Amino acid sequence: MPHISLPPEFPGIRSLFVYCPESAGPLNDLVQTILHDPSFSTLTPGERELIATYTSALNTCKYCTSTHGAIAKYQLGGNGDLVKAVVLNPAKAEISEKLKALLAIAAKVQVDGKNVKAEDIALAKEKGATDKEIHDTVLIAAAFCMYNRYVDGLGTVQPDDEALYRERGRRVARDGYVIVSEEYLASHAK
Amino acid sequence: MPHISLPPEFPGIRSLFVYCPESAGPLNDLVQTILHDPSFSTLTPGERELIATYTSALNTCKYCTSTHGAIAKYQLGGNGDLVKAVVLNPAKAEISEKLKALLAIAAKVQVDGKNVKAEDIALAKEKGATDKEIHDTVLIAAAFCMYNRYVDGLGTVQPDDEALYRERGRRVARDGYVIVSEEYLASHAK
Repeated sequence: MPHISLPPEFPGIRSLFVYCPESAGPLNDLVQTILHDPSFSTLTPGERELIATYTSALNTCKYCTSTHGAIAKYQLGGNGDLVKAVVLNPAKAEISEKLKALLAIAAKVQVDGKNVKAEDIALAKEKGATDKEIHDTVLIAAAFCMYNRYVDGLGTVQPDDEALYRERGRRVARDGYVIVSEEYLASHAK
Repeated sequence: MPHISLPPEFPGIRSLFVYCPESAGPLNDLVQTILHDPSFSTLTPGERELIATYTSALNTCKYCTSTHGAIAKYQLGGNGDLVKAVVLNPAKAEISEKLKALLAIAAKVQVDGKNVKAEDIALAKEKGATDKEIHDTVLIAAAFCMYNRYVDGLGTVQPDDEALYRERGRRVARDGYVIVSEEYLASHAK
């Protein structure tokens, strides 16, 4: 049960976006920018969703791991096995060496930004990562240390049903992140 | 030295905002909303800055602790000793029992959102906290787990000179959070 009175018809962060539209605006703009906007990064939306999913898994946030894992799957052409392999152990997954080095940086950021050392950066650059891709990785990992804590810290509802995440994943991969409070307001204006 | 090529004339997150204006927008909108906007919360800006400062201290992020500590001081009528006491140990600081209970929740969120338990929420409510104030506390603590990691994870410059933070603190307490990239563009348009 949530720690505060949240709208029961929405799970996870969506219940928080409806509860507090004032912060939902910038929180949604941020995730849309760093994960979905094609012009933001030379990392693909699929790669960026993998960084978000992996960070959420390290933070054991079920809602965000399931949601972004589902979005990543659709962004990667339906390859759910690849998403599972990355969550389990990026070093052994069938991804580029560059993405492995970036995910290793994300894992350090998840614990403490100060854990990122010059040798981690050097390895990522050796594998072809640009400064901006390193920046984007650190920002995505840091941002999910926020989203995960926001979702978990208020005890939001985190459904078990994988079909719910699948449906949401398909939709977000296609349309991007829409502010749920707009959906909510629209549905209540009928 | 920063891990990537950041503009050397700006410290901490300001160098990141100039480096990447696309994400600076929502990141700045978020901090302005949750810490500064009077209409966002029944917690005062001073109380909200204390939550941000305390979380940043727990994450040992020097830049954010110094910056938000300086802003908190000005928001609290110049009471720098109170800010120091909160950073040291909120339970012994001269603040309300409600704020003590909220800071205890922030400390749990800093580690893992799932550490927040029903008894932490019950205590905060007993001391007079509303659902919305609990929400705002969790969101602020979560957000600073992001900002701290972003600032530390890219190795930004974090000056020792307290006067720099003091001047910035005075200005932000008065004017709110302005996007530094606008300042940067303005200064370079001369």
